[in-house]
Amino acid sequence: MDYAALHLMADDHIKAALQEDMNQGDISTAAVMPHPQAGDVQLICKQDGVIAGLQIFQRVFTILDPATSFQMNVEDGDEVTAGQLLGTITGDVRVLLSGERTALNYLQRMSGIATYTRRVAKALEGSGTTLVDTRKTTPGMRLFEKEAVRIGGGVNHRYNLSDGVMLKDNHIAAAGGITPAVAAAKKVAPFVRKIEVECETLDMVKEAVEAGADIIMLDNMTHDQMKEAVALIAGRAETECSGNITAENAASIADVGVDFVSSGALTHSAGILDLSLKNLRVL
Amino acid sequence: MDYAALHLMADDHIKAALQEDMNQGDISTAAVMPHPQAGDVQLICKQDGVIAGLQIFQRVFTILDPATSFQMNVEDGDEVTAGQLLGTITGDVRVLLSGERTALNYLQRMSGIATYTRRVAKALEGSGTTLVDTRKTTPGMRLFEKEAVRIGGGVNHRYNLSDGVMLKDNHIAAAGGITPAVAAAKKVAPFVRKIEVECETLDMVKEAVEAGADIIMLDNMTHDQMKEAVALIAGRAETECSGNITAENAASIADVGVDFVSSGALTHSAGILDLSLKNLRVL
Amino acid sequence: MDYAALHLMADDHIKAALQEDMNQGDISTAAVMPHPQAGDVQLICKQDGVIAGLQIFQRVFTILDPATSFQMNVEDGDEVTAGQLLGTITGDVRVLLSGERTALNYLQRMSGIATYTRRVAKALEGSGTTLVDTRKTTPGMRLFEKEAVRIGGGVNHRYNLSDGVMLKDNHIAAAGGITPAVAAAKKVAPFVRKIEVECETLDMVKEAVEAGADIIMLDNMTHDQMKEAVALIAGRAETECSGNITAENAASIADVGVDFVSSGALTHSAGILDLSLKNLRVL
Amino acid sequence: MDYAALHLMADDHIKAALQEDMNQGDISTAAVMPHPQAGDVQLICKQDGVIAGLQIFQRVFTILDPATSFQMNVEDGDEVTAGQLLGTITGDVRVLLSGERTALNYLQRMSGIATYTRRVAKALEGSGTTLVDTRKTTPGMRLFEKEAVRIGGGVNHRYNLSDGVMLKDNHIAAAGGITPAVAAAKKVAPFVRKIEVECETLDMVKEAVEAGADIIMLDNMTHDQMKEAVALIAGRAETECSGNITAENAASIADVGVDFVSSGALTHSAGILDLSLKNLRVL
Amino acid sequence: MDYAALHLMADDHIKAALQEDMNQGDISTAAVMPHPQAGDVQLICKQDGVIAGLQIFQRVFTILDPATSFQMNVEDGDEVTAGQLLGTITGDVRVLLSGERTALNYLQRMSGIATYTRRVAKALEGSGTTLVDTRKTTPGMRLFEKEAVRIGGGVNHRYNLSDGVMLKDNHIAAAGGITPAVAAAKKVAPFVRKIEVECETLDMVKEAVEAGADIIMLDNMTHDQMKEAVALIAGRAETECSGNITAENAASIADVGVDFVSSGALTHSAGILDLSLKNLRVL
Amino acid sequence: MDYAALHLMADDHIKAALQEDMNQGDISTAAVMPHPQAGDVQLICKQDGVIAGLQIFQRVFTILDPATSFQMNVEDGDEVTAGQLLGTITGDVRVLLSGERTALNYLQRMSGIATYTRRVAKALEGSGTTLVDTRKTTPGMRLFEKEAVRIGGGVNHRYNLSDGVMLKDNHIAAAGGITPAVAAAKKVAPFVRKIEVECETLDMVKEAVEAGADIIMLDNMTHDQMKEAVALIAGRAETECSGNITAENAASIADVGVDFVSSGALTHSAGILDLSLKNLRVL
Repeated sequence: MDYAALHLMADDHIKAALQEDMNQGDISTAAVMPHPQAGDVQLICKQDGVIAGLQIFQRVFTILDPATSFQMNVEDGDEVTAGQLLGTITGDVRVLLSGERTALNYLQRMSGIATYTRRVAKALEGSGTTLVDTRKTTPGMRLFEKEAVRIGGGVNHRYNLSDGVMLKDNHIAAAGGITPAVAAAKKVAPFVRKIEVECETLDMVKEAVEAGADIIMLDNMTHDQMKEAVALIAGRAETECSGNITAENAASIADVGVDFVSSGALTHSAGILDLSLKNLRVL
Repeated sequence: MDYAALHLMADDHIKAALQEDMNQGDISTAAVMPHPQAGDVQLICKQDGVIAGLQIFQRVFTILDPATSFQMNVEDGDEVTAGQLLGTITGDVRVLLSGERTALNYLQRMSGIATYTRRVAKALEGSGTTLVDTRKTTPGMRLFEKEAVRIGGGVNHRYNLSDGVMLKDNHIAAAGGITPAVAAAKKVAPFVRKIEVECETLDMVKEAVEAGADIIMLDNMTHDQMKEAVALIAGRAETECSGNITAENAASIADVGVDFVSSGALTHSAGILDLSLKNLRVL
Repeated sequence: MDYAALHLMADDHIKAALQEDMNQGDISTAAVMPHPQAGDVQLICKQDGVIAGLQIFQRVFTILDPATSFQMNVEDGDEVTAGQLLGTITGDVRVLLSGERTALNYLQRMSGIATYTRRVAKALEGSGTTLVDTRKTTPGMRLFEKEAVRIGGGVNHRYNLSDGVMLKDNHIAAAGGITPAVAAAKKVAPFVRKIEVECETLDMVKEAVEAGADIIMLDNMTHDQMKEAVALIAGRAETECSGNITAENAASIADVGVDFVSSGALTHSAGILDLSLKNLRVL
Repeated sequence: MDYAALHLMADDHIKAALQEDMNQGDISTAAVMPHPQAGDVQLICKQDGVIAGLQIFQRVFTILDPATSFQMNVEDGDEVTAGQLLGTITGDVRVLLSGERTALNYLQRMSGIATYTRRVAKALEGSGTTLVDTRKTTPGMRLFEKEAVRIGGGVNHRYNLSDGVMLKDNHIAAAGGITPAVAAAKKVAPFVRKIEVECETLDMVKEAVEAGADIIMLDNMTHDQMKEAVALIAGRAETECSGNITAENAASIADVGVDFVSSGALTHSAGILDLSLKNLRVL
Repeated sequence: MDYAALHLMADDHIKAALQEDMNQGDISTAAVMPHPQAGDVQLICKQDGVIAGLQIFQRVFTILDPATSFQMNVEDGDEVTAGQLLGTITGDVRVLLSGERTALNYLQRMSGIATYTRRVAKALEGSGTTLVDTRKTTPGMRLFEKEAVRIGGGVNHRYNLSDGVMLKDNHIAAAGGITPAVAAAKKVAPFVRKIEVECETLDMVKEAVEAGADIIMLDNMTHDQMKEAVALIAGRAETECSGNITAENAASIADVGVDFVSSGALTHSAGILDLSLKNLRVL
Repeated sequence: MDYAALHLMADDHIKAALQEDMNQGDISTAAVMPHPQAGDVQLICKQDGVIAGLQIFQRVFTILDPATSFQMNVEDGDEVTAGQLLGTITGDVRVLLSGERTALNYLQRMSGIATYTRRVAKALEGSGTTLVDTRKTTPGMRLFEKEAVRIGGGVNHRYNLSDGVMLKDNHIAAAGGITPAVAAAKKVAPFVRKIEVECETLDMVKEAVEAGADIIMLDNMTHDQMKEAVALIAGRAETECSGNITAENAASIADVGVDFVSSGALTHSAGILDLSLKNLRVL
């Protein structure tokens, strides 16, 4: 995330997260530390994985106090190991304590997604199939979760309903078939979007290609059906397959020859990467 | 969540989640369905678990169109099974399609948390130890995730830094010891809060009880240490234990005799419960 | 704009526009009309054109008072003529007066854009070239101005910097040429976006096609250069031309054979369509 | 606009305009420029006119990145000519590219209004009649459009319904005549406001003056009627005339002798001043 | 406040006040009343005074639940007495309990201001001098406090710095004297505003009148000086006096002959009117 | 308020207060001071009391212009006297003028509350009874008013309905008695909260203690009843008394022996402390 994006888009989320955790101040810290007190604290890794979200982690503290400073030993996308010292945060001890939980909540979740994405992406390495995410993200967290997927080595599918055309069974039914649905989308949707059609049978695949779909999504097909579909499409459209892809079964798809495989699990089931702020010192 | 809480607190989050997913409309649906069209769709369960968040699920659709109606076969907290028809949503097909993903993203996550919480809570049943959550929630989702814990059978720990006093090692260091830290908290913090002190040794436990702590948190102690601590406290304070409690190891804590056991995993590692909107019909 | 989009996206804008015009109430109306008073008023057309924005016009009044009702004689996209009675608004006279200016400010601007767009689109009729808009919109008004273009008969180009890839001279320079720029975009940008490249010479066009650009934009080329470019591209990419297209010169482009022609003037120089609320009656 | 006004009032608008153009980042720029890169770009004038809004133009970039700097050759209100180099913007190339369109959208529109206002104001020069604007502004843009009018040489009429009393035919009807309407306004409206009454006939003018109106607006009267009205008022109230004043016909009003002439066209029909960012250099 | 103003301007304040009092629900009520329960409660007056803010009081409850209903025995501006039953509120008991404090906080404060304003206004009755308020209001409460002044029988001075011109000693110093200050204000400020000048001496009064000030404010003058100033002004400008006017000393100003007397105490020192919700019944 | 709390929680309120006072700029200042002008102004005390809110006072000016600087002679909680020079503010004269009223509105109100709180707290000195506030605060001002109470020497009761459990007569009625009400609260409310029960008779006090209430509130009891209640409770719960405690009658409660006495008057009837910005100099 570049500087502009961070401030333009992420800041409002981060500030809201801090306000969620402090609607009227940090009463424990205020009780025992009424005055500013310089200190530092270490960011320690407690589990092997891929780190992601360091910018957001830091921004939590600089929103609380711009004078907070950071000495980081790793950067987004690096592989980290349990016990590793990832960096040191220096500033007012009260800020270090008040920001700790929110900062870790972002960093642990983003790193968890990056870690899981990396695992799945590696299983696909060399196959010519690219791993993409979905819209199955946590409400309000899409900006961060899609970034974590990129850091982990995946590619983003459409961001939301406004910037990608995906015609599913219901759209097709409403339009009276794949052919009129694709025609309607080509006519009305902003022309810079590709048209993707979700197909469950080879007949649908055939109709979609002929209607001029840019991307064919093979939905819940068997391994053999997908191979047959790819052969039938023969490069006339890009291909995506979907349906419960996980780190465990991703490799088995590698030989199908689809261009993209999408996985909701990247964002909805990755779990966190365990991290901790430790060894706080008063300076 | 009662009617007032839903509208006063949840609505802004839900509207933001919808705007995250539609910054300028649903272009696929707009292309193929330019006019209103009545229809219904079924909410189907694809995995055994505990359902949670039905109110939020419904609110996604009624924010888009107050005329959407619901016929629900289950209520929050019910155990559901794969294949079960959970309910039917009736309204403008365009609204059913545009709201689907956001509604499911809430419901799947809340149900996942409730399902996992139920498992851990059951492991503690009969032990006299109550399961509580933590502040390790997804940024912006605490309202929903803490509700899911309650629905699953857990009890909420403090909501945020403003409404509970928890004195950790750093607070204690800053105050110059447990005794002065507790004294400072009793003097300054709103008197309706209980004072909780995090203790790592029996000496700390002893000092905290004598300083008048209301709750003693036993942090990362062994099973035997915890038993000894509970004996030492002898009812003079409530007791909580913490540290990587999971559905797998929760039962082993049951005989320690602490009042509360807290688990961050309830909200950060529960995974989702798989649910789906299927069989959309144009009416 | 469907019901959901209207409420999810337009309402905040409309409310802000009303607050801009009434930071502490309508003091003239409050002085002379302290109590509710039923009445109606006519929406009269004062200039020939295309009407657009009736939904927004009505929403201004229903935000002030949901009991306001409308009897409309036209719908969005209709051609209207000076003197025509477009509809009647019935409600509390105080609401009719307080909402008048904001409602007309939206309707006049959107209708002005639709009117101008219709003129340019007609000049291109039969040519196979489609008229599209640009991002040269009034800050904060893009949602409404892009809708007015659609109502007038144009098609929308990308909505913003997040949902379309357009590689201009500076992007190309930064990437070290068209080929690496297109490669970078294909690798990083969400795969559902088409890649558009702005070209000023035939050499650039050639390189862009070969690099796999989905759309070639011919920027400020002469009529002959554009024809040559279209021949060179030979259907391997979609084509767009740009550069000071107006209602006056649009027809001259019709024979070039590009797929799309974009015009910033649609939104930045259309002027308004003159409309008025007249003949208010107290009932 | 002074520093305080800029930050207190304009910043929220500018930030919203940037978010309208980048709901999840600038994907073209992010693809080809993953890292910060110093550069500069020139602001070039492409049409003769009056420049207005330089502060807003600059603020777009400093909201994206406070380190952006500017070397400006002109200031608000200066006459500029096609081809003129107006200034140079230096900063991260990514910020220059991402902010370009939004910055120009503000500057072009404000300069267009200032240019048109200057033309009309010049036509009135020496007449003793002052040019004022109206509330016929683009929704959400009033702050900027009213400033552009001032920069162009006009004077602002009331800002909104809350800060000026204008009694129109409907208010008069509701109050039962001009005399009771003025009396009601004097009694209820904040006493620091002047009371303006819209009059269509000389009888109305007479009654309004005698009721104690501070300003008489002559609405859609002929040239001769207006002269007669001014004579009748004889300095007992200020006078304003209204009704389709444009740059073309403004001079013809100069001899009427009214104090003010208001024109909606200043803000709703001015068109833009064509400006461009060119010659971006990587430094 | 009319319907439009209430919803357009007051709703955001009221919702924020409720969120201030319930950042995550009403935990007492939720604990003992998990389900909806019809009931009613009485609004009882505990102190003699003037009631003001009934609309806001009601709106607190209907924001929580639109189904709440009201049977009111008084209206804004009525004199009420200790022990009087002012009305009955019927709805979900949980809503009655959760909204009670916020609703009373508004109603008590607005009624306190109306009560105090009524006392001061009565002391001025028959004198030809009108009581006006100031900008010495509670931050965020101006809309409500200025309305309470009107209900109590006062008239509003300017609402804020944007809609009234008041030239104080510092403005005069900056402009180089009263004459150039008034000239600058006449030239730049929207012409519908009156120009008010704050004068401390008779010389200043003389200069201000001759410079064309619309209103002369006599600041901290003695009784005799004010009389002399009014004679000197002789109707050429409106007159206002200011400086620690209270209910106790207001009558002594009645014979001075100024048009207006302003009092900050109306809004900053009025105290509350004691009111209570009593006799809640479960129905 | 520490740095983080100030920026995270107070800034939005302060900015809104400034926007309330300047919806489109300070037209008086803009008229006479079109350009920046360095100057300073003195903060003068006009009444004896306790100063509170200096941080908020300063923040008003630094939000308008971060370059404003302060030389303060006192700090929050200091006793100040009429005529005392409290500090000097240096910056752009336009900022000093535009921010003056809002800054003083905060400082006067907070200091008024601190002054009154100090008086009541002193009357209780040595009694072992602590003074606490209530939720009877001005809507939107709770953050500031509760801080002023602390500065004055009081202690905060619960912040809002979400962070303290208080069971009143209606809750008790709904639950079917004190015993089941306390049991419900212990089961459902976050376990870190103490349970407070409002009691009007000694029988209620007895039941509440036995049900395990943490705090017993003696509501509107006589002096003798309260003494009896304290004896009956005998240290098994904390005790609070409530009911029209003022600076005048506080001392009479000192011998009752309750732990806490709560007073709504601290925040709803304290009045302001008179302060002024004087002697502005252009530098």
